[in-house]
Amino acid sequence: MPERVLVYSRFPKSLMLRIGERFDLLDAAGKPPNEVFTAEQLSGVRAMITAGGTPLSGNMMDMMPKLAAIVCYGTGYDGVDLKAAKSRKITVGHSPGANAASVADIAVILLLAVTRRLLVADHYVRSGDWAAAKPSPMMRPQPGMPGRKIGIYGMGEIGRKIAARVAAFEAEVGYFSRSRRDVPYRYFPNLEALADWCSVLMIAVRAGADTHHVVNADILKRLGEDGCVVNIARGSVIDQQALVNALTDKTIAAAGLDVYAREPHAPDALTAFPNVVLSPHIGGHTLESHTAMQDCVIANLTAFFEGKPLPYVVREA
Amino acid sequence: MPERVLVYSRFPKSLMLRIGERFDLLDAAGKPPNEVFTAEQLSGVRAMITAGGTPLSGNMMDMMPKLAAIVCYGTGYDGVDLKAAKSRKITVGHSPGANAASVADIAVILLLAVTRRLLVADHYVRSGDWAAAKPSPMMRPQPGMPGRKIGIYGMGEIGRKIAARVAAFEAEVGYFSRSRRDVPYRYFPNLEALADWCSVLMIAVRAGADTHHVVNADILKRLGEDGCVVNIARGSVIDQQALVNALTDKTIAAAGLDVYAREPHAPDALTAFPNVVLSPHIGGHTLESHTAMQDCVIANLTAFFEGKPLPYVVREA
Repeated sequence: MPERVLVYSRFPKSLMLRIGERFDLLDAAGKPPNEVFTAEQLSGVRAMITAGGTPLSGNMMDMMPKLAAIVCYGTGYDGVDLKAAKSRKITVGHSPGANAASVADIAVILLLAVTRRLLVADHYVRSGDWAAAKPSPMMRPQPGMPGRKIGIYGMGEIGRKIAARVAAFEAEVGYFSRSRRDVPYRYFPNLEALADWCSVLMIAVRAGADTHHVVNADILKRLGEDGCVVNIARGSVIDQQALVNALTDKTIAAAGLDVYAREPHAPDALTAFPNVVLSPHIGGHTLESHTAMQDCVIANLTAFFEGKPLPYVVREA
Repeated sequence: MPERVLVYSRFPKSLMLRIGERFDLLDAAGKPPNEVFTAEQLSGVRAMITAGGTPLSGNMMDMMPKLAAIVCYGTGYDGVDLKAAKSRKITVGHSPGANAASVADIAVILLLAVTRRLLVADHYVRSGDWAAAKPSPMMRPQPGMPGRKIGIYGMGEIGRKIAARVAAFEAEVGYFSRSRRDVPYRYFPNLEALADWCSVLMIAVRAGADTHHVVNADILKRLGEDGCVVNIARGSVIDQQALVNALTDKTIAAAGLDVYAREPHAPDALTAFPNVVLSPHIGGHTLESHTAMQDCVIANLTAFFEGKPLPYVVREA
C-alpha cells in the first residue's frame, strides 16, 4: 500500500505523474487542505509536497497532526515557516541545484531580451512596420554585451551559472553575496557598491526574511538611467512598487522578471511597459530540471518513509 | 574640400553622422543613384558606401565612371558583384569582425527565446492567462540547454563567438565549415551530417553563390521534429519557402530569424507562426558595433583617398 502524501501547492498534473506512481497523492491543488479533504483523510498524512514559494504556516501544518516531512519541489523554501516546522519536529527537504542551469538560462534570456529589445523587434517585424520603414525610437541601437558591467546578487549555484554564461558574452562580471566566494569575478562588499558599479543587476539570491525588499528605490537609482534589473529569484527580493516607479520615471531603463510579489499576478502597472520582459515563473521549467526536481522529491520521500534522513534536507530547518 | 562619397543603401541618418563629418556624402538612400543625382554630380564620385547585402551590379557601378572603391558597411559583401568590380578595377572593402560579438549575441538570443518560448511566455503573463491559470499547450516544459546538441554552420569570427557563448550554457557544440578549424568543437565533414546530429542549426556562414539555399527541405528534415533553425547570416542561405513548409507541417519545431529572403519583408506565412521569433536584421545593431563598423568605413575611405590600399579589403575581390 503506497504511503499517502499531500500535494499542497497547485502543480500541473503532468509534474506529479512519476511521483504519483510511487505514492498515494492527495492533491489540495493550492487550496487549504481542510477545504478539500476530511480531517480523517488528513489525519494519516505524514509527508507533503509544496512549492517552496507558497506560504505554509504552522496553522496549516497543524491540519495534519502526523505531518513529519515537508518536501519542497524546487530549490526554494522561503514560503515554509521553518521555525514552525522545527518546533513541530517536521523535517524540510528541497531540490538543491536541480534547476540551477534552467533558472540561470532564463536569467540570461531575460537579460539579453531586455537589453536588445527582442520583443519590440519581433513586433516591429510582425506589424509590418519594418517593411514600411516606419521610424521606431525603441529600435535605436543599444549598448551590447562586450564590456557591459553585469552585477550578480547572490553567488550560489544559480549565481555561478549565470556568471559563467554572462562571462562568455565578453561582459564584465561583479557580484555581492554574504561572503566572498572562490570565483574569478570581482567581489563587492555590499549591494550598494555593486549597484553603483554595474549597469545590469541580476538577482539570484536565496529569498528569505533578510532579503525582503532589499532591492529598493535606492538600489534601483544606483543602477542609473541605462540600468536594468533582472529577477529570477523571488518577487519578495524587489520592492515591486519601487520598481514600477523607477520604470515610470525612467530612473532605470528596463527590467526582466520571472518572479513577482504576488504570483500568478503581474500588476497592470508592470504589464503596460514596453521595456520589460515578463515570464510566468518558468525559471526551472525545462524537461530536464523537472525530472531532476522530481528525482529529489522522490528520493526525499522514499528516505523519509524508510525512516532515514532526507538526502536533500534544508539545513536551516 | 572633403572628398565626395555616394551612400548607396538606405541607412538611418544617425549611422552616417561621423562619416559625414569627414566626407561629402551624396545619399541615394536605397534608390538608383541616377534617379537622385545628375550625371554631373555622379561623375566626380570615386568611392561609395553600401550595405553588403544590397544588390550592386556592374550597371550600377557604371553610373559613376570614376568609381574606384566600394566600401561595405558591415562584414558581408554578398550583394556586390565582385567580378564586375574587378573588371572595372574597383577595390572592395568591408568591416570584418566589427560586428561579430553583436551578431553572435543575437544568434544566441534567438536560440534561447525560441527554445524557451519567451514570446509566448511574455504574452501568457500580459494577457492575464497566467493569473487565470488558463491551460496553455505552448507553455509545456521544453528541453533546456545542458546537453543540447547545437550545430553551427560556418566557423568564422561570428561562428566562433556563437560557439563560445553556447558552450557556456553546457550545450554540446558541433560545426561544419569548408575546412576543419582549430577549435574545441566536434567537426562534421558536411552539412547533412551536422543536421543529422544536432537539434538546433545555427547558420553563421558567409553568404554567396555557393551557399544559396543550401539549408533546404532535406537539411531541415534531418533536424527532426524537435529541431530548430536560427539564421543570422543572410536570408539567401535558407530556402525560405522550404522553411515555411517545414514549420507548417511540423517537420521542425521552431525557428529564429534575423535575416530574410527579401528584406525588409518577412512574409505573412512566417509572421503567422507563434513558434518563430523574428528580428529585423539587427544582428550588428549595437552602439559598439556601429562605432566599430564606422571606424572600418572611415579607415577604408581615408586610405583610399590617400592612395593607399584599403586596410579592410575584401580579398576575393
